[in-house]
Amino acid sequence: MKKTGIGIIGTGFMGLSHALAYRAAAAILPGEVIPELIAVADIDKAAAENAARRFGFRRATDDWQSLINDPEIDVISITTPNRFHLEQALAAIQAGKHVHCEKPIAPNSDDARIMTLAAEAQGVITQVGFNYLKNPMIKLARTMIDSGELGDIVSFRGIHAEDFMASPLTPWSWRLDPAGGAGAVADLGSHIVAMARYLLGPVVAVQADLETVIKQRPILSGAQGLRKVEVDDIARLTVEFARGCKGSIEASWVATGRNMQLGFEVYGTLGALHFTQERFNELHYYNTDTAGGQRGFRKIEAGPQHAPYGAFCPAPGHQLGFNDLKTIEIAEFLRAVAGQPVSGPDFREAWEIQKIIDTAIRSSREQRWLTL
Amino acid sequence: MKKTGIGIIGTGFMGLSHALAYRAAAAILPGEVIPELIAVADIDKAAAENAARRFGFRRATDDWQSLINDPEIDVISITTPNRFHLEQALAAIQAGKHVHCEKPIAPNSDDARIMTLAAEAQGVITQVGFNYLKNPMIKLARTMIDSGELGDIVSFRGIHAEDFMASPLTPWSWRLDPAGGAGAVADLGSHIVAMARYLLGPVVAVQADLETVIKQRPILSGAQGLRKVEVDDIARLTVEFARGCKGSIEASWVATGRNMQLGFEVYGTLGALHFTQERFNELHYYNTDTAGGQRGFRKIEAGPQHAPYGAFCPAPGHQLGFNDLKTIEIAEFLRAVAGQPVSGPDFREAWEIQKIIDTAIRSSREQRWLTL
Amino acid sequence: MKKTGIGIIGTGFMGLSHALAYRAAAAILPGEVIPELIAVADIDKAAAENAARRFGFRRATDDWQSLINDPEIDVISITTPNRFHLEQALAAIQAGKHVHCEKPIAPNSDDARIMTLAAEAQGVITQVGFNYLKNPMIKLARTMIDSGELGDIVSFRGIHAEDFMASPLTPWSWRLDPAGGAGAVADLGSHIVAMARYLLGPVVAVQADLETVIKQRPILSGAQGLRKVEVDDIARLTVEFARGCKGSIEASWVATGRNMQLGFEVYGTLGALHFTQERFNELHYYNTDTAGGQRGFRKIEAGPQHAPYGAFCPAPGHQLGFNDLKTIEIAEFLRAVAGQPVSGPDFREAWEIQKIIDTAIRSSREQRWLTL
Amino acid sequence: MKKTGIGIIGTGFMGLSHALAYRAAAAILPGEVIPELIAVADIDKAAAENAARRFGFRRATDDWQSLINDPEIDVISITTPNRFHLEQALAAIQAGKHVHCEKPIAPNSDDARIMTLAAEAQGVITQVGFNYLKNPMIKLARTMIDSGELGDIVSFRGIHAEDFMASPLTPWSWRLDPAGGAGAVADLGSHIVAMARYLLGPVVAVQADLETVIKQRPILSGAQGLRKVEVDDIARLTVEFARGCKGSIEASWVATGRNMQLGFEVYGTLGALHFTQERFNELHYYNTDTAGGQRGFRKIEAGPQHAPYGAFCPAPGHQLGFNDLKTIEIAEFLRAVAGQPVSGPDFREAWEIQKIIDTAIRSSREQRWLTL
Repeated sequence: MKKTGIGIIGTGFMGLSHALAYRAAAAILPGEVIPELIAVADIDKAAAENAARRFGFRRATDDWQSLINDPEIDVISITTPNRFHLEQALAAIQAGKHVHCEKPIAPNSDDARIMTLAAEAQGVITQVGFNYLKNPMIKLARTMIDSGELGDIVSFRGIHAEDFMASPLTPWSWRLDPAGGAGAVADLGSHIVAMARYLLGPVVAVQADLETVIKQRPILSGAQGLRKVEVDDIARLTVEFARGCKGSIEASWVATGRNMQLGFEVYGTLGALHFTQERFNELHYYNTDTAGGQRGFRKIEAGPQHAPYGAFCPAPGHQLGFNDLKTIEIAEFLRAVAGQPVSGPDFREAWEIQKIIDTAIRSSREQRWLTL
Repeated sequence: MKKTGIGIIGTGFMGLSHALAYRAAAAILPGEVIPELIAVADIDKAAAENAARRFGFRRATDDWQSLINDPEIDVISITTPNRFHLEQALAAIQAGKHVHCEKPIAPNSDDARIMTLAAEAQGVITQVGFNYLKNPMIKLARTMIDSGELGDIVSFRGIHAEDFMASPLTPWSWRLDPAGGAGAVADLGSHIVAMARYLLGPVVAVQADLETVIKQRPILSGAQGLRKVEVDDIARLTVEFARGCKGSIEASWVATGRNMQLGFEVYGTLGALHFTQERFNELHYYNTDTAGGQRGFRKIEAGPQHAPYGAFCPAPGHQLGFNDLKTIEIAEFLRAVAGQPVSGPDFREAWEIQKIIDTAIRSSREQRWLTL
Repeated sequence: MKKTGIGIIGTGFMGLSHALAYRAAAAILPGEVIPELIAVADIDKAAAENAARRFGFRRATDDWQSLINDPEIDVISITTPNRFHLEQALAAIQAGKHVHCEKPIAPNSDDARIMTLAAEAQGVITQVGFNYLKNPMIKLARTMIDSGELGDIVSFRGIHAEDFMASPLTPWSWRLDPAGGAGAVADLGSHIVAMARYLLGPVVAVQADLETVIKQRPILSGAQGLRKVEVDDIARLTVEFARGCKGSIEASWVATGRNMQLGFEVYGTLGALHFTQERFNELHYYNTDTAGGQRGFRKIEAGPQHAPYGAFCPAPGHQLGFNDLKTIEIAEFLRAVAGQPVSGPDFREAWEIQKIIDTAIRSSREQRWLTL
Repeated sequence: MKKTGIGIIGTGFMGLSHALAYRAAAAILPGEVIPELIAVADIDKAAAENAARRFGFRRATDDWQSLINDPEIDVISITTPNRFHLEQALAAIQAGKHVHCEKPIAPNSDDARIMTLAAEAQGVITQVGFNYLKNPMIKLARTMIDSGELGDIVSFRGIHAEDFMASPLTPWSWRLDPAGGAGAVADLGSHIVAMARYLLGPVVAVQADLETVIKQRPILSGAQGLRKVEVDDIARLTVEFARGCKGSIEASWVATGRNMQLGFEVYGTLGALHFTQERFNELHYYNTDTAGGQRGFRKIEAGPQHAPYGAFCPAPGHQLGFNDLKTIEIAEFLRAVAGQPVSGPDFREAWEIQKIIDTAIRSSREQRWLTL
């Protein structure tokens, strides 16, 4: 049993989610590793102090570099806006820390490549926060696909749509900063691209159309001035997988009424799956083995037979929540840090995902299919 | 009250559906027109006789031209495979008959143009069987969009997927004959394209990818020989509407487990709709007017407030069936024949739809965006 | 092929539904019988004439007795308010007519007994309009139960709830007339009781609680005066089946927001079913044979494998509507009249159902379990 | 900021759930109280030690009394089988500890009364684990009912059904021990009774039917001998609320295929709600204010507007899990211990619930309505 010192950079949505997950992880995956909550960094020192107190970290700082150099810290979570990821990750890697970085790991695949190669050269463990992959029902989906239960896969249809940018009155923010990368295709599209790869493997070609629906936004909430939006609000991709089938992928953050429409359909010659994160404790499965008049999509509910659900609850149907998915992610990362196999997605996988995003952006500009 | 003589060419799925609908139409739209069921034609004379007896037509023939020349017949329904539509429709138009033609009206937009111009020159009423548009809930959707309740429309996501060609063992058939036009994009895609136009208006540009998933099929069920498949099994389109927004459209007849996944999502700045023909007596509507903590998609169930539902049943929630949609379509056609306004879709509209299909085929070959 | 003369008494909701169904039945069940639409009777002669014209009946009358004595009429549908059923049915039976009577056939089981015994003595065919039983998915449910696929049945949970009497402003009407029988328990409860018997067989004991929620209603819409309501708005029953299991049954016509919540759940030791008329082209089936981690309720969609769906449409997923259920009912009745086996429910079955309703009323008064 | 020492008795399903929740509570409700995880007791000492290590408690013991006497412990969670609750709770109360006890708090209402009066005499804070009440969507439902948005409530329909005892091969266990109280009506029925009271207030009369479906069960899994089952597998209740409306309530642990069917429907003169724990991040709401043709049940998804969802996640649609509900429950308990208002349910509320259970049992025996 080994203690692992934890530091977190950033105290926004994801910073707090990480803090919760590090606390919970010990209880879920006992014995192998004990996370010790050492320090939180945020440029807003009060925010750092507040988070440290709330989540039980020992120290707070407004200097993320001091956290990286902290000898008590073994593992660093980077939850800052995308454009800071490269510098912070490289510094952490340089210091020999294992690094968890929120997605997308970089504004572009060049940065992602640098980060990946640095981490691999240094031999540190990495992880990227595509937390939805950690859902036991997604693992079940992949197992069913890999086992051949669906036959040959012939089609994929994926989407990640939310509505947090749907109102033209929602002001400009760091998510719209082109220095941080693309818009919806990077922020949300990366999740469904990650899921497509997790389920069906590498993508070899992309055709995409990216669109900025709301051309200008208020500089600040309620303010007079408008600022031009340079990133996409909606992206529509057609992709080709190395395994031979194709699929469509959409990303939108202007889908009024949608809070979490991250979903997919996978069709094979012998069966099919459909799933939506809106009801993520369910996976719908159709197979052609059933007698003709009794066929139909079956609603499988998450339960202890779908590891690691049982670590949270011994009874089926009780349901995991979003934070539990993050806990699974962190627990698997900590297990990898402790010497267990890496379950990923690691920096290299995130780089692959980023390549698809970059190719989509280029395809949209050039209005044609591009190979990866 | 005027009697209208009816003739039907073809006795397959759609031939029988038309026969049922002509019988039922009188009861639904009383007073304006009384359909008289005169004759049925089929190259298989026994099939024609059987249909005539079953549905109460006076005569059966294996000679469709005799039916066209029958002076008792005012209206002709063409329900034969697509490649016969041109010849039969032109003959009927020439004879001064009003023509209902099943979709897609032609293998390509050139034929559709010829048919359209001939009908307009002759001044006959035309209709094309995009029956799903006749659902009162689709009319409600369009009314809501037109009224501005959804604000500015920003995105469309449509699909028509079924699985009747999903098995590689399903043999070659006339639907796969390239002389009859394209594959899934024409057979199913035309329905969702028609719906997209009905809801959001003209399409001005298309980018598409068409794919033949099952490259060869048995010549006949259970037979040894294989025949090459030249038409698409799956089509994925990105479209741009004249009103300024874009959308994605998919068509697939290899979507294992799907019997009738004809659906759409429409997003606007103030609201959204989603719908699937799998539960076509429901329309789901979200609006941003509602108080924050009580927002959500609302399941509107069809009822007498959604005309012409009330002509079928005075109580809500009892539900229309597929044949009722066909009855509405035929009743509206007969009303137009009797001098009421044309509700469509007529040949010209079907030509517009066909142009989009043709453009999609060409876009897929040329791998680029094309304008209409 | 034999012609069968049809007469209908009543032109309300059900009168029109019958007229539509007699028209459609010929097309659905060809060859055995040809219904000839002879006459319609209604105390409002204009309504009778209007219905006759609209549905193609030859004659209209305001004298239902003349219709009963009409020698061209073989079959009579009684669709008047419940309190007229006894007199009209006895007269029709006396005249040797086959009788279809809307449900509930009588205000009480004494009348139902008299009607049943009279029909059986006369040897005429009878049918009662529990149309929801004619849904192919309900037939599928019964087949699955009978085949033992669900194992031993251990529990039933049924409901029929609508909201057409939910508003306290909805005025008094014939449905509230105690001379016509009970309230929601008879009007809606009889449907779910009929379904319970159809699926699971005889009921041997009942415990019930009937409640009048809205104690007084306007005499007429918008009028000043109030009239006391003497029948139930909600009924809650516990029943025991002869096969050994028990169940709960609810009926309510004050269930705000519910248009057609006619539903059931059936649980067995090996499987389960759930169903709602709100989506009546679907049956949900769970079985314990499936591998543990893949179990779930399966959504079976209606298709040609579920006879007589195929008579309406050769392709699955297109869906039947409410009027199609009525058409199946009428077609089966006409087939029985033509000498085919009776599929029911006939007067005797309706009498059995009425006994359960009567026992429920008495149980509620006496506040205890009663055996049938 | 005050430290509160925690002890847990029992390490089964609920013991672990409590341990997780005490760990997580600090992060969710910062500042007011800091739980210190002191000791775990279990008759199986290895289990206690394992739990202590896994969840970070300082000490483990097989002597629950030593835990009660531990001066470092302020708060005790009792998660043992029901028949131990009385003795353990009284000892803890006697020692001046605040007590959280799992539901049902006692085998019968006499014991519940003794526990309640002892706690109130001693002035300690109590809580009982009806965790489903802590769902923000349930709080929303109650707020809507209380505000009058639904008008006058006219009906309730509730159920809690699972299938963990559905197989006749599932062996006898402590849940079937009549010394521990009733069967499904106590184990599951208490949850839906608690919810009914939470939403609609006191129950004044009950009519019930309790049934033992599987009369004998294996003594042990796979063993030869059978043991008679004396408690109910299914309970069906009709209840009358003090506010004037009635409702039905079912409990079943033999509902094959159901993992978590804890649900209700509430109907009022102006609106309605329906909910199921199977999708517990959703509440469905209908209101009659909406324009006629646009009415429908609206699916409200949980988000930060539904406190305390926002303490877990700042974005809507991400979803809480079962353990989060337990965390809310524990956090509210700890806040009450720290001097904040008690949110309950406390021992007195659990006693009221138990009275309903006891009355149901007696009503079933006596086959009649009983008042409370």
